Amino acid sequence: MGDGPGQRDTAGAPGRSATVGEAERFARAALTRVLEPGDERGGRWLGEFGAQELLARLTAPDPDATGLPGAGPRRFESYRTRAAAADPHRDLTAIAAAGGRFICPGDGEWPTQLDDLGAARPVGLWVRGRSDLRKWALRSVAVVGARACTPYGAHMAAALGSGLAERGWVVVSGAAFGIDGAVHRGALAAGGATVAVLACGVDVVYPRGHAELIGRIVEQGLVIGELPPGDHPTRSRFVLRNRVIAALTRGTVVVEAEYRSGSLVTARAALRLGRYTMGVPGPATSGLSAGVHELLRGEGVLVTDADEVAELIGEIGDLAPARRGPVLPRDLLDPVSKLLLEALPARGAVDSGHLARGAGTTTDEALGRLYELHALGFVERLGDGWQLTRQANRGTKARRGGS
Amino acid sequence: MGDGPGQRDTAGAPGRSATVGEAERFARAALTRVLEPGDERGGRWLGEFGAQELLARLTAPDPDATGLPGAGPRRFESYRTRAAAADPHRDLTAIAAAGGRFICPGDGEWPTQLDDLGAARPVGLWVRGRSDLRKWALRSVAVVGARACTPYGAHMAAALGSGLAERGWVVVSGAAFGIDGAVHRGALAAGGATVAVLACGVDVVYPRGHAELIGRIVEQGLVIGELPPGDHPTRSRFVLRNRVIAALTRGTVVVEAEYRSGSLVTARAALRLGRYTMGVPGPATSGLSAGVHELLRGEGVLVTDADEVAELIGEIGDLAPARRGPVLPRDLLDPVSKLLLEALPARGAVDSGHLARGAGTTTDEALGRLYELHALGFVERLGDGWQLTRQANRGTKARRGGS
Repeated sequence: MGDGPGQRDTAGAPGRSATVGEAERFARAALTRVLEPGDERGGRWLGEFGAQELLARLTAPDPDATGLPGAGPRRFESYRTRAAAADPHRDLTAIAAAGGRFICPGDGEWPTQLDDLGAARPVGLWVRGRSDLRKWALRSVAVVGARACTPYGAHMAAALGSGLAERGWVVVSGAAFGIDGAVHRGALAAGGATVAVLACGVDVVYPRGHAELIGRIVEQGLVIGELPPGDHPTRSRFVLRNRVIAALTRGTVVVEAEYRSGSLVTARAALRLGRYTMGVPGPATSGLSAGVHELLRGEGVLVTDADEVAELIGEIGDLAPARRGPVLPRDLLDPVSKLLLEALPARGAVDSGHLARGAGTTTDEALGRLYELHALGFVERLGDGWQLTRQANRGTKARRGGS
Repeated sequence: MGDGPGQRDTAGAPGRSATVGEAERFARAALTRVLEPGDERGGRWLGEFGAQELLARLTAPDPDATGLPGAGPRRFESYRTRAAAADPHRDLTAIAAAGGRFICPGDGEWPTQLDDLGAARPVGLWVRGRSDLRKWALRSVAVVGARACTPYGAHMAAALGSGLAERGWVVVSGAAFGIDGAVHRGALAAGGATVAVLACGVDVVYPRGHAELIGRIVEQGLVIGELPPGDHPTRSRFVLRNRVIAALTRGTVVVEAEYRSGSLVTARAALRLGRYTMGVPGPATSGLSAGVHELLRGEGVLVTDADEVAELIGEIGDLAPARRGPVLPRDLLDPVSKLLLEALPARGAVDSGHLARGAGTTTDEALGRLYELHALGFVERLGDGWQLTRQANRGTKARRGGS
């Protein structure tokens, strides 16, 4: 411990609309080293005392004076050991060096639907990638499944990844082998937006075989996680990571899962959170579909393609304002987004490469902004291209002096 | 027309507990040549005037004096032409020659759950096979599906047919190629009870390639239908046959069905009738599972094996008294059934061949009776054998002087 506020150059917070003070950010960054993902007791302390006060109590010289309820002496000592070793300055410097940032509740980029997790809400999120997580999460859907999937499962996962991306949905998964990887690759191949939620530090490549894939997601999408830089995954971290995937998205699709698999943990978390929970059927003789079928015999909804997923999750509007048109004044948009909107014609669709050139930016940057604009109701995807929505078009005409 | 009551020797009615008079049986047999399956207008006339009066009106010399509401002249003339040509004596003789019978509402063997069809209730049923249809139908389940099924579909159909038969369920299907055939074969192979509901006369072998299968079902099970002897199937008869399958059983399982297929007609009929409607999932990429998946996205319940089917349909007790123990006094049982009960030991299971020898009858006959006794709650199937239920055992002990 040691570094406090005033370290703006290394804080790694997004410049755009951060509202959290540096002391708070430092304290929360430190606490991601102290509290394991989903630690509800820690989450309750955090809610009661605030991040800075909690950290101060955990690092107080006199352990008997901390006044933190509910932890036995041995457990409490483990918290104190971790807190003493935490070095948020080093971690925030490391994430900045990796081109990333650390976001907290209260930041403009914080996805507020994670608040549904209550005391299990992440302390903060480490993020790599250039897009705005909050905007992306507004129109996002999770697709998860077995690591040791069948060729059928991989095919369905890739088709859902690309199909949902083509329909303007941000596709979230866990970057694992098997279904997860096929989902991300499908979304990337469709020139789409994808978010990988890791169970380790976002600068740690796990699994190693997915180094190239994760690197590509950092470029074209977002790689996020609760664990501080350098931290490695554990069994419980994998399981608890799934609650973040479930809470972040409007719904979760499971493609191939055995009985009692981690993907079903995500699905059940989604159900508890009131999100849509879907499953892709397979042969009744396949053990890799048994978990999905169990889900579908309960509250899960059977889906066979991206249209069916989009139809279901598109019905609800509580997470995204998309269906009600733009809610953000254009003047609040970042400069690149404004240029992209200017580059779109009043009628017809244009591909993202063309738009990127028109706005003087890269295709990856343009894509990220376009998915944000989609979530905000300004644009929509049409096949390979993008076009203004009717509402946005009216606004543009008005600005251009049309009627 | 011509032959009236008094033809008991050719009536072909089951001797056991028939309660319908011969005049009524003759009239209804004639009307199966006049009214197409599912003719609701005809069904309403039947309800209003009764079979004999309706037939008299349709065969009256003066067509203007019949007073039947709701049919145009041309349509009405078609009814009259058919009524004039009907020859119930010939048909009842033919069914008797084929070893069968004709049963009507009011007969002891009539499956009263068909009354749920209202005006579309069959006028009567032509039946081949030695078992009691009413008792069998009490614990029956339909398994239907595509003619041009995949090897996966055929495997699932056969497994459900044998699995349900092994659990004491009577398995009903339509004797078509593909799924239907696999279902019947599965049930037969397990030494089980199966009912084929035909869309043609029960003495007509359709499809021809199933001659041996249908013959085997006549021996070991029941072959039934609404059409009089010699009548051939038509497209509409196939469709309307499905309502009988749905109404007869506690639930319908669909194994492989394309969009808008006949099997889905059965499934939807089952839903309308308040029966359980189930579907076996398959790959989302298979057109032959698309209809099933559509069903499962609605009110259908996903099932993957016989246990799941039995668990679901076993929950309801409105059609069968099985779960509440025997309701029929033993004295009312037929002699063979009584002998079979006597042949069963107080504890443990015995195979049907052994029981048949003990009761001095054939294995097929014994099997038919055992499934009836199962429906009535006297016996239950355990693997390859049969044993007394707890309730029946108490009754036996009491009769034998035990306590």
